[in-house]
Amino acid sequence: MRNPLLVPDLRELIQAGETAALRDFFSDHHPAQVAEMIEDLRPVEGDTILGLLPARNRAEILSYLDSERQVHLIESMSPAESAALLHLMSHDERADLVNRLEEDNVDRILPHLAQAEREDIRRLASYEPGTAGSVMTTDYVTLSPQLTVREALERLRHDAPDSETIYYNYVVDPQRKLVGFVSLKTLILSRSASARIGDIMRHDVIFARVDEDQESVARQIGKYDLIAIPVVDTTDMLVGIITHDDAMDILRKEQTEDILAFGGVSKDAEADEESYWQGRIVEAVRRRIGWLLMLFLAGTITRFVVHSFNWVNDRFPLLEFDTFIPLLIGTGGNAGSQSVGTIIRGLALGDIRPSDTIKVVGREVLTGLLLGMLLGVLGFGFTWLILGHPPIFGAVIGLAILGICIWANGVGALVPLLARRFDIDPAVVSAPLISTLVDATGLLIFYSIAILLLIRLAA
Amino acid sequence: MRNPLLVPDLRELIQAGETAALRDFFSDHHPAQVAEMIEDLRPVEGDTILGLLPARNRAEILSYLDSERQVHLIESMSPAESAALLHLMSHDERADLVNRLEEDNVDRILPHLAQAEREDIRRLASYEPGTAGSVMTTDYVTLSPQLTVREALERLRHDAPDSETIYYNYVVDPQRKLVGFVSLKTLILSRSASARIGDIMRHDVIFARVDEDQESVARQIGKYDLIAIPVVDTTDMLVGIITHDDAMDILRKEQTEDILAFGGVSKDAEADEESYWQGRIVEAVRRRIGWLLMLFLAGTITRFVVHSFNWVNDRFPLLEFDTFIPLLIGTGGNAGSQSVGTIIRGLALGDIRPSDTIKVVGREVLTGLLLGMLLGVLGFGFTWLILGHPPIFGAVIGLAILGICIWANGVGALVPLLARRFDIDPAVVSAPLISTLVDATGLLIFYSIAILLLIRLAA
Repeated sequence: MRNPLLVPDLRELIQAGETAALRDFFSDHHPAQVAEMIEDLRPVEGDTILGLLPARNRAEILSYLDSERQVHLIESMSPAESAALLHLMSHDERADLVNRLEEDNVDRILPHLAQAEREDIRRLASYEPGTAGSVMTTDYVTLSPQLTVREALERLRHDAPDSETIYYNYVVDPQRKLVGFVSLKTLILSRSASARIGDIMRHDVIFARVDEDQESVARQIGKYDLIAIPVVDTTDMLVGIITHDDAMDILRKEQTEDILAFGGVSKDAEADEESYWQGRIVEAVRRRIGWLLMLFLAGTITRFVVHSFNWVNDRFPLLEFDTFIPLLIGTGGNAGSQSVGTIIRGLALGDIRPSDTIKVVGREVLTGLLLGMLLGVLGFGFTWLILGHPPIFGAVIGLAILGICIWANGVGALVPLLARRFDIDPAVVSAPLISTLVDATGLLIFYSIAILLLIRLAA
Repeated sequence: MRNPLLVPDLRELIQAGETAALRDFFSDHHPAQVAEMIEDLRPVEGDTILGLLPARNRAEILSYLDSERQVHLIESMSPAESAALLHLMSHDERADLVNRLEEDNVDRILPHLAQAEREDIRRLASYEPGTAGSVMTTDYVTLSPQLTVREALERLRHDAPDSETIYYNYVVDPQRKLVGFVSLKTLILSRSASARIGDIMRHDVIFARVDEDQESVARQIGKYDLIAIPVVDTTDMLVGIITHDDAMDILRKEQTEDILAFGGVSKDAEADEESYWQGRIVEAVRRRIGWLLMLFLAGTITRFVVHSFNWVNDRFPLLEFDTFIPLLIGTGGNAGSQSVGTIIRGLALGDIRPSDTIKVVGREVLTGLLLGMLLGVLGFGFTWLILGHPPIFGAVIGLAILGICIWANGVGALVPLLARRFDIDPAVVSAPLISTLVDATGLLIFYSIAILLLIRLAA
């Protein structure tokens, strides 16, 4: 949808002061599209355009702008103007934005808001990052069971402009306890306008707890195909809702975070809210050094393995055992990475359950056997025909590859499954971890086969 | 939500023939929850429960069952019963299910359906996997611009039971060309019941093309916070819609697929529809052997690198250069994996654009410098203090680690960015690819530093 050709035209209209044309152009676009166009223009041009649009529109567009632009815009306005804009924003976006402003700026703006709104912002901003509370919003409609369908529809009409959604509506008792759910579809389809909400609502509402992990809530929204899910506190009081679009954002973040983890970077709920550019390099170092250090220390074992088997090398100096080490352990790492990637995906999609451990490891070992046979034959040919080593040494290399592939696939399958068993997120089982695990053990396989074929069998 | 304690109770109720109690119990649960409980019971017990519930309910639950159970259920029914059930299912789920049935079974069932439904199934099943067409559904309401708000609401009420959603409605002209969009919210909020749809609808509809990639469509739904997106064919005729819940499923599949790719397994649109268990092992081998083979062949270079530098090793036999090889290239692979994971995530989230290449590579190289300094000092200490080698050799190892970390981070950043530049999905840049790229070059860095410090400087 990004159209760079548009920018010069828009710029011309802005310079010519064609406010009517600009207003017309932008009013028929989705706020997300307008936000994109504004991001492509200079800040001052963007401000001009936002100034032309109705206030509610402006508030909507604001929430689609990147956070830097949002902060810039608020900071360029008077506290009263900022407050007027915040008043019209959706409650979760508003709380996020206020969180990003500087403290003294916040102190200047908040007094211009009604007390209820100030409290709402403070409360939404107070939840632990990564919880349902931190992503929920408070602009939703509640209905009481005593209302009739007609009254409920009146209420929705009245509250709609300030609500995140009017399609899913929650029914609460006088203590704001969540007692039921009624969709707009149910209201519209109701045969009698005087039916009571309490009689047509669903009692078994799927809900989330305010301190629940945001990812598990987002998964529930996906699993039950919901447009929104209500969030309750420890006393079952309704305190917010999370909508389907926020769930999608959460899943996108969490799942790309899995890629980070799979690459061997520690998970960190707070840092994951940030873009690649935010946070200093020291922060990036901090998130990577843990695993890197642990794997480095584990990797030092390989030095002792090679050292203790160097007598094999010395006994057959022409074979140059050491020249095959990178290829062998590299292949093991690659096969293991494929296996662990497959298993993590299977676990994430729910195809694989921890109880399937034996079946999965069996399947992966068998896959490793087939892959190892193919690569082993190649390794045999490479060593014998291309390098001109004796065929028995070709067999050593070929069998080592076979053994390493089987082993790597088994480890790559077993480790994430064990992690899941011990309630560790299997996505922290990274490709580097499996590679490192397979390095030292792969060398053992290599030297064992060499000793068996070259020394034991020859003796 | 899975509650294994429930199973014995349900089993007892089934055996006692307590149909009323069972019906009551299941009618207040979400179809997805009922589907889960049925999956925990034996097939015959599940069939009993489904038999108790109203037909529409049964059709809804069916679509939440795993595909094996769906097929089993249809196969256990008469063709007429199957057709009655298919008639009530959502159109996309129905087409998917028919796709999974055996051909002669389909031939027995389809004649029991109306011709329009048969054609709908055939058409939906005919789209290329991975396209918008393959995931869209056809059970939606269309409105004409001439209708009044009152008439439109009537239409929605009438069509609601058979529609996937009535919250987003699309306006078409007599040729079924998509001309506008009106939400149920707009209809409800309309001040006049006699206003024409053509006057209150949005003209600038965000839509997808039938042959568009399903992932890009799902991303649009997320970006614009849509409940559904209309799908048009090459003549701009409305042919289907894709709903937010299907978009979430698509993103979940696509993003876990990225993990697979990152582990070094080829992407494959058709195989990705399958669960871990479907498809034979030969299929798994086929998807893995390509990369594994390529990386193996690339990896053979390392043999020649080590071989051609073995004279350095021979000149300092006590230092045992080869014993450090696995540790050094392992660390390079790990650092590179972290870097590539970070960049792929940044690209997926849109934080990083291809135009940022130089900035990104610079940042990663700097991160590699800091990480390399920390690990380098450790490597120096390990070689000198623990292994008792001369400090100058400790310096060789320490500097080699530093150089390899910088290099690995640079390669890990550059390769996915170049892939994106050349319109290759950066997610195919796997951890194994980066590791393999860094292996041979890392060895070059190691031996170059050794020659410089031990031979040149000593001379």
